[in-house]
Amino acid sequence: MGPEELRKLLESVRTRDTSIEEAINKLKMLPYDDLGYAKIDYHRHLRKGFPEVIFCQGKTVEQVAEIFKRLSRASDTNIIGTRASEEMFQAVKKHVPGAEYDAMSKMLMRRFSNTAKRGKVCVCSAGTADLPVAEEAALTCELMGNHVERIYDTGVAGIHRLLDQVDKISQANVIIVVAGMEGALPSVVGGLVDKPVIAVPTSVGYGASFHGLAALLGMLNSCASGVTVVNIDNGFGAGYAASLINKLAGDQ
Amino acid sequence: MGPEELRKLLESVRTRDTSIEEAINKLKMLPYDDLGYAKIDYHRHLRKGFPEVIFCQGKTVEQVAEIFKRLSRASDTNIIGTRASEEMFQAVKKHVPGAEYDAMSKMLMRRFSNTAKRGKVCVCSAGTADLPVAEEAALTCELMGNHVERIYDTGVAGIHRLLDQVDKISQANVIIVVAGMEGALPSVVGGLVDKPVIAVPTSVGYGASFHGLAALLGMLNSCASGVTVVNIDNGFGAGYAASLINKLAGDQ
Amino acid sequence: MGPEELRKLLESVRTRDTSIEEAINKLKMLPYDDLGYAKIDYHRHLRKGFPEVIFCQGKTVEQVAEIFKRLSRASDTNIIGTRASEEMFQAVKKHVPGAEYDAMSKMLMRRFSNTAKRGKVCVCSAGTADLPVAEEAALTCELMGNHVERIYDTGVAGIHRLLDQVDKISQANVIIVVAGMEGALPSVVGGLVDKPVIAVPTSVGYGASFHGLAALLGMLNSCASGVTVVNIDNGFGAGYAASLINKLAGDQ
Amino acid sequence: MGPEELRKLLESVRTRDTSIEEAINKLKMLPYDDLGYAKIDYHRHLRKGFPEVIFCQGKTVEQVAEIFKRLSRASDTNIIGTRASEEMFQAVKKHVPGAEYDAMSKMLMRRFSNTAKRGKVCVCSAGTADLPVAEEAALTCELMGNHVERIYDTGVAGIHRLLDQVDKISQANVIIVVAGMEGALPSVVGGLVDKPVIAVPTSVGYGASFHGLAALLGMLNSCASGVTVVNIDNGFGAGYAASLINKLAGDQ
Amino acid sequence: MGPEELRKLLESVRTRDTSIEEAINKLKMLPYDDLGYAKIDYHRHLRKGFPEVIFCQGKTVEQVAEIFKRLSRASDTNIIGTRASEEMFQAVKKHVPGAEYDAMSKMLMRRFSNTAKRGKVCVCSAGTADLPVAEEAALTCELMGNHVERIYDTGVAGIHRLLDQVDKISQANVIIVVAGMEGALPSVVGGLVDKPVIAVPTSVGYGASFHGLAALLGMLNSCASGVTVVNIDNGFGAGYAASLINKLAGDQ
Amino acid sequence: MGPEELRKLLESVRTRDTSIEEAINKLKMLPYDDLGYAKIDYHRHLRKGFPEVIFCQGKTVEQVAEIFKRLSRASDTNIIGTRASEEMFQAVKKHVPGAEYDAMSKMLMRRFSNTAKRGKVCVCSAGTADLPVAEEAALTCELMGNHVERIYDTGVAGIHRLLDQVDKISQANVIIVVAGMEGALPSVVGGLVDKPVIAVPTSVGYGASFHGLAALLGMLNSCASGVTVVNIDNGFGAGYAASLINKLAGDQ
Amino acid sequence: MGPEELRKLLESVRTRDTSIEEAINKLKMLPYDDLGYAKIDYHRHLRKGFPEVIFCQGKTVEQVAEIFKRLSRASDTNIIGTRASEEMFQAVKKHVPGAEYDAMSKMLMRRFSNTAKRGKVCVCSAGTADLPVAEEAALTCELMGNHVERIYDTGVAGIHRLLDQVDKISQANVIIVVAGMEGALPSVVGGLVDKPVIAVPTSVGYGASFHGLAALLGMLNSCASGVTVVNIDNGFGAGYAASLINKLAGDQ
Amino acid sequence: MGPEELRKLLESVRTRDTSIEEAINKLKMLPYDDLGYAKIDYHRHLRKGFPEVIFCQGKTVEQVAEIFKRLSRASDTNIIGTRASEEMFQAVKKHVPGAEYDAMSKMLMRRFSNTAKRGKVCVCSAGTADLPVAEEAALTCELMGNHVERIYDTGVAGIHRLLDQVDKISQANVIIVVAGMEGALPSVVGGLVDKPVIAVPTSVGYGASFHGLAALLGMLNSCASGVTVVNIDNGFGAGYAASLINKLAGDQ
Repeated sequence: MGPEELRKLLESVRTRDTSIEEAINKLKMLPYDDLGYAKIDYHRHLRKGFPEVIFCQGKTVEQVAEIFKRLSRASDTNIIGTRASEEMFQAVKKHVPGAEYDAMSKMLMRRFSNTAKRGKVCVCSAGTADLPVAEEAALTCELMGNHVERIYDTGVAGIHRLLDQVDKISQANVIIVVAGMEGALPSVVGGLVDKPVIAVPTSVGYGASFHGLAALLGMLNSCASGVTVVNIDNGFGAGYAASLINKLAGDQ
Repeated sequence: MGPEELRKLLESVRTRDTSIEEAINKLKMLPYDDLGYAKIDYHRHLRKGFPEVIFCQGKTVEQVAEIFKRLSRASDTNIIGTRASEEMFQAVKKHVPGAEYDAMSKMLMRRFSNTAKRGKVCVCSAGTADLPVAEEAALTCELMGNHVERIYDTGVAGIHRLLDQVDKISQANVIIVVAGMEGALPSVVGGLVDKPVIAVPTSVGYGASFHGLAALLGMLNSCASGVTVVNIDNGFGAGYAASLINKLAGDQ
Repeated sequence: MGPEELRKLLESVRTRDTSIEEAINKLKMLPYDDLGYAKIDYHRHLRKGFPEVIFCQGKTVEQVAEIFKRLSRASDTNIIGTRASEEMFQAVKKHVPGAEYDAMSKMLMRRFSNTAKRGKVCVCSAGTADLPVAEEAALTCELMGNHVERIYDTGVAGIHRLLDQVDKISQANVIIVVAGMEGALPSVVGGLVDKPVIAVPTSVGYGASFHGLAALLGMLNSCASGVTVVNIDNGFGAGYAASLINKLAGDQ
Repeated sequence: MGPEELRKLLESVRTRDTSIEEAINKLKMLPYDDLGYAKIDYHRHLRKGFPEVIFCQGKTVEQVAEIFKRLSRASDTNIIGTRASEEMFQAVKKHVPGAEYDAMSKMLMRRFSNTAKRGKVCVCSAGTADLPVAEEAALTCELMGNHVERIYDTGVAGIHRLLDQVDKISQANVIIVVAGMEGALPSVVGGLVDKPVIAVPTSVGYGASFHGLAALLGMLNSCASGVTVVNIDNGFGAGYAASLINKLAGDQ
Repeated sequence: MGPEELRKLLESVRTRDTSIEEAINKLKMLPYDDLGYAKIDYHRHLRKGFPEVIFCQGKTVEQVAEIFKRLSRASDTNIIGTRASEEMFQAVKKHVPGAEYDAMSKMLMRRFSNTAKRGKVCVCSAGTADLPVAEEAALTCELMGNHVERIYDTGVAGIHRLLDQVDKISQANVIIVVAGMEGALPSVVGGLVDKPVIAVPTSVGYGASFHGLAALLGMLNSCASGVTVVNIDNGFGAGYAASLINKLAGDQ
Repeated sequence: MGPEELRKLLESVRTRDTSIEEAINKLKMLPYDDLGYAKIDYHRHLRKGFPEVIFCQGKTVEQVAEIFKRLSRASDTNIIGTRASEEMFQAVKKHVPGAEYDAMSKMLMRRFSNTAKRGKVCVCSAGTADLPVAEEAALTCELMGNHVERIYDTGVAGIHRLLDQVDKISQANVIIVVAGMEGALPSVVGGLVDKPVIAVPTSVGYGASFHGLAALLGMLNSCASGVTVVNIDNGFGAGYAASLINKLAGDQ
Repeated sequence: MGPEELRKLLESVRTRDTSIEEAINKLKMLPYDDLGYAKIDYHRHLRKGFPEVIFCQGKTVEQVAEIFKRLSRASDTNIIGTRASEEMFQAVKKHVPGAEYDAMSKMLMRRFSNTAKRGKVCVCSAGTADLPVAEEAALTCELMGNHVERIYDTGVAGIHRLLDQVDKISQANVIIVVAGMEGALPSVVGGLVDKPVIAVPTSVGYGASFHGLAALLGMLNSCASGVTVVNIDNGFGAGYAASLINKLAGDQ
Repeated sequence: MGPEELRKLLESVRTRDTSIEEAINKLKMLPYDDLGYAKIDYHRHLRKGFPEVIFCQGKTVEQVAEIFKRLSRASDTNIIGTRASEEMFQAVKKHVPGAEYDAMSKMLMRRFSNTAKRGKVCVCSAGTADLPVAEEAALTCELMGNHVERIYDTGVAGIHRLLDQVDKISQANVIIVVAGMEGALPSVVGGLVDKPVIAVPTSVGYGASFHGLAALLGMLNSCASGVTVVNIDNGFGAGYAASLINKLAGDQ
């Protein structure tokens, strides 16, 4: 139940279109629903401006299906499940026929077409192997109501590819930069634009990349100002933060 | 030379109030000035919306003084020197009488009173020992034209102190959260508000804090959405990113 | 052979209800039994107040079955096997029909119904994915004679879910707090209650969680007093320590 | 203000020995006092059973002196300042003449003679160089009302020194074991007794001790059950947790 | 070709029982044989007192089989292949029918019955899961001509099991101590005997054992004198070094 | 399109043998071709003297096939795909019949016979298990037009095997030294010759090799001058750098 | 004694201008001179093309002075002492009046004016604080007979400063790139030129730079081909390797 | 009191030359003497064949002086204090006039001239900066009754210096090899001799040596058989272990 629905409910109580009893029934699942293994937080949309996101990794297929089902019944907003398996998707689809799955980013979604669109978030990625993470970020932004510009495969070793795109990048309110290996791209982008940059290190690489540690450290030590960092491979986190930032710029 | 001054200069060229010769003289220091050991980037204000910031650590006293002097002559904007020593301040003051120094945050500044004020950035810190970093963030925000709300000493082990402040925190556009030791504060704050949170780990702690590593890892793994992270003790970086974000919300 | 049985045996020797020869036969398996690859320590119940626990990981199925069988014959107390596989359970069941297996926590058990119950231990967990570790802790406590209160899925990013449960938590003598990712929950709980808190980091997370290292460091640096820590994913160790502590509070 | 004082105050309000106005004045400093750089938590004694402890490292001498002074005025309980310098002690003594300082453990204290005594906590240490940490633990326990038995210099390489002391150790309700280098002592002690053991790794050692990391990892991986661990050199944390545990055993 | 054979060959050249041509043919494979991917070092027995050992991990099945075959033809000494797979054994057996394989320690061997026996090496291990490494050490010692005393499952948490064996341990010239988890056993053993102790950390454990790092650091920081350490899981290395040491004590 | 072809094209434009329209068509794929998931950089041969190399790991089979196909059509130079799977090779072969695959080094190649040959690069490796990395380096050098001398299995523990080869090694212009475990070989080689040495650590080893970290650190700390290092297992990177260096020595 | 002097000596022996006895006296200090604490290697110039370099750190002032003195007497080539203190310089100057000292790079030198000059080595550095390391590299190159082009303060966050210099950089045979913090500069430079790049990470930075680890890992994972890496702050090592490479390009 | 003295005492009791009372007085300090902060272990000589060694680091000057004094009174054997300061030596000398101090190795000693001499231990070191550790090893060996051969400054980058010494090295029963930086020397030495090699990593180096970690890991991964390792900078530990090993070879 989102804030819009809640306001309507309370107004209809005031206008006596809804009885107290009915209102209580609708509200009683607040603030959360306790499944024993999980407490579903329907209140979250009110508090954070977006419904609960399901971090699927480490949950059983049954748990994911049950939580997704309950969230989909409780509200009419978009729903996001990250790091989901194909098998989880199959289980969810039985209960929520409109659910979708993106195999590259491993995202499980319920998506409504009437999502309002805010200004542009730009998602840059350094190499082709970084795409799953970049797509997780891009899809999260889209599901949270943002226009997304994708600029992929623009690593720093071929700097001219990046310089060609500076105009496009500059038009976004926020830039998400996804890179593995040495993770240098956010520094270069951050030096070219005057917008907040969210850097996402990926585990792409081998040897002394130490599963993304090299990229993470590189980004944390960026000599460019205005760069902040999220966890390795955390495309969702970058997309979520970018959405909160983009919201500040107001609707278009 | 900031964008406002530049526009005026070009307009006065068009209106013939300034001769071509004069304009060339004023512009010729663009794009940067090469001191051998440093290339001063006067163009930066145009490109990034703020003048060059001097990272003083690792530079000699003479180098800092020379760079500060040149920047102060080239433009009428605020100037920031981070991780500066008292000795550097003394050397700068000889050339730039209006320079100030904040011993707690080790910041060296030239500050003009007519700085425009944007919406509020909130700076929270977990413990008293985190103050130098929190102040570096807060002063950076102020020098970049933001209202700042400081909420200090609100660690997660006394959660009621924090809950008392939720209303105040919620009114800010961006929240900077500074914490050492286990670095848990950003997760709790991030769960309470629907604004972007910039987490700053500090090196406060001992033993298995490993000079801030524990706090850094904690923040990168935050279970709250909307949290991004900067380097250990990087109050300046957090303040700078917060300013870019706050700018998106427009002037008040 | 537990301390109660031993005292009875010795008293019956004194009252001549048991002959010296009989007593010797019963005692002769003390102090331990050498299988070559393992020395089974029947004495342990006397020394530590609980029988040998079998750490099954790294042992062959045959070794686990043999040790479990011998322990079950030597004494009438509960028996615990941790990190056991389904296959080990099948092998044990052939010799010890009453053996049970909990697939989530991977615990292999022989459980007697007449277990005495002491005061309450509370087991809190941060996320659904932490449940296997939380259940290992909870089952260990139950098998060692404690009442257990389970409070699951109460992460710090939704602090109201936790605050709702403070009264329940406060009634326990000891609190076990299980959390992955940034591991912040023990700090918050430790700040709310005046009881010992045992923190269990889990390997839940990805990227810079480094298989539980982030949570471990976070807990070791907890700013709340009264928090001690066990190894990553060591639900059993937390349950065991909690049981020793709860025993000090006396039987109810 | 401790819980005992608070109850008396409220009873005297009920019996009209104290006017409402007086009570309000006495209570109004609740829940905490905001110094800007620190929020002093007078409520803590009620909530956690002990007054605020001052973590002095990273605070200025002036900050420590001010906080200590306010706490000493607000209540008649013992006060603890950890990791304090001699200089801080000199500043505190001016305001709180009865303050004491222990140079070995760097503890700053106000200690009342009428402290109630609970059952015994045993503090073992492995080597002479571990004494500062062991004393921090022991003094914390004493200031929190526990009898303390000190057993020092009993490293595992001379196991007979330890075995001589087993009887003494067994009489304690809780055992704190302090060790640097390989940190093996808690495992041996934990295998000999059936009481909770709190292990404190110290930074004593060199080379591959990595400032206490070796001891910390050793203790976390202890093969003895019932061992929990605190941060490197955190004698205070061990003493505090031991006090909470010992309280469960009741007064003697 | 071992030193004994070489001496005989040279003597028979001197006594003219062998022609110069024959001797050259026999010697010409010295110093090594180049297979392209490997240089087989037949000279090693002369130089180090033992033939080339094959580190099988990372080699293909074909490479292992070829090297083993050549070594077995070149000399009549024992041959050792470490970290070999069952499949490698099957391939070797076709060429060297007398080859043996020990699945627990993954050792591939050719063993002659007439191996001379030197004084005793004692191999202690802490837990049942450490057996594969302990057996690698023990078998290496046996193949290099030493008597071996195995004392298994004597962890420090049940110190009495170890103390029972001190006499047996003391009779050895060298003691190999194998332990995972906290790796404390070498310190205790090293404090009880006046013989060199070779400590072998194993990867047994989980979480903060970090695949044997905890045990390795523990052993390197041993407070007992006379302890030296080899790589994690390197039973072979410990056995080899123990054999060199035991050789110094002379034949029995 | 390589620089030679480009020069010819432009000359034929000048001599009117090629129409402007034709030239435009041939040049229009410059500077790169955007596939969405990858930007193919045909310009690279001009800029770096060699065509784009495909880092196959992390790309899908389809992506590799498409990129390889486009590169093979755009130019007549050798093409290199590193860390490719057998499956990728099968997909590439359908489009580029002359493609080759080396299973040991996992390299996918298109190789022209008329490759010019420069002076010698020597590739040394320490153990048989290092061969896949050594071959990746050697094949890269050959595909980039260098003579290659392979000297394998010459570890420092049998220093005479290495000393036998010093003359051969000294004749090369550059030496690539591949080693796992302790990674000591580059130091010894670097001390024997007066040519640049490129050290390649490999992940060969176990336990405290930490997947090549030990070898990497060893090489970075080499006491021999003239040694530089590439990433763990990065045979390609070493081969590429060696080729650039060898080019400086001129054609033979 | 360098190779030129040696050839002359031998020729003068052949022409009988030098007696056998004299020659023996001159040669007898070969191959090295044993001071007990150091073996001075006069042969090195022959073997490696340059005299012994003195790594001064960790040596006493007396040891450095003695070694420098002996080297200066034995030959007429340039001499380099790295990581030397001012105090060492004072001690050396007494014996070797022509010795020089560069305080920024801490280099101690004896320099002859007639040093032959080879083609250009370019030394780029990212920030002003990297200068001591960059100068160590540049001076090493100059002392080894190379022309040096210095391009300082060209970090990736202001990419236009770097792009302005590409032509200059491209004219060098080898490029040394010195950078701290995220260490991204070598990737960008490596992508722009077709010459070997030697990357030198510096310890410039703080927090998660971990004393240069971030820069080191970044450089090892460079996505640009042709980049090799030396130890953190090892300007000398980079200069030495660059000199060996530049020598291949021949004299100008 | 050493074993020889003890045997004489008991024999004189049997022959009535010593009264029971006298014997009791002499023996009563067994097994150890409790100073509160330290338990002095006079029994150690009996148990380990050598008196207690004082690890001085972390002890106060007073504690070291008191322990040294008591040990010197209790027995007539050599005494060793490691990591002692000059100041400690001055305090000890007041009580034990014959005490000596070696400033390079920081060893504090009481040395008797009539020390029996066993076979040779060889101590090799790689660089001049490794001397303090090498001397700690060498002096420990001498004080424990071994002949010592010192071979210093024989790093692997100048392998001919080492090869010159192989004969000398081969004559020792045990070889201690001390090296910092990449720590490669033990592998080379271990490949040349058939005697046990004890490797001592030192903290000599900078940057990626990480205070000796690189050398430590290198030595643990040595490809030479027969190499065991002690802690970083632990010359004493190597000397002690070497002495135990050399004792096995019997007196000369």
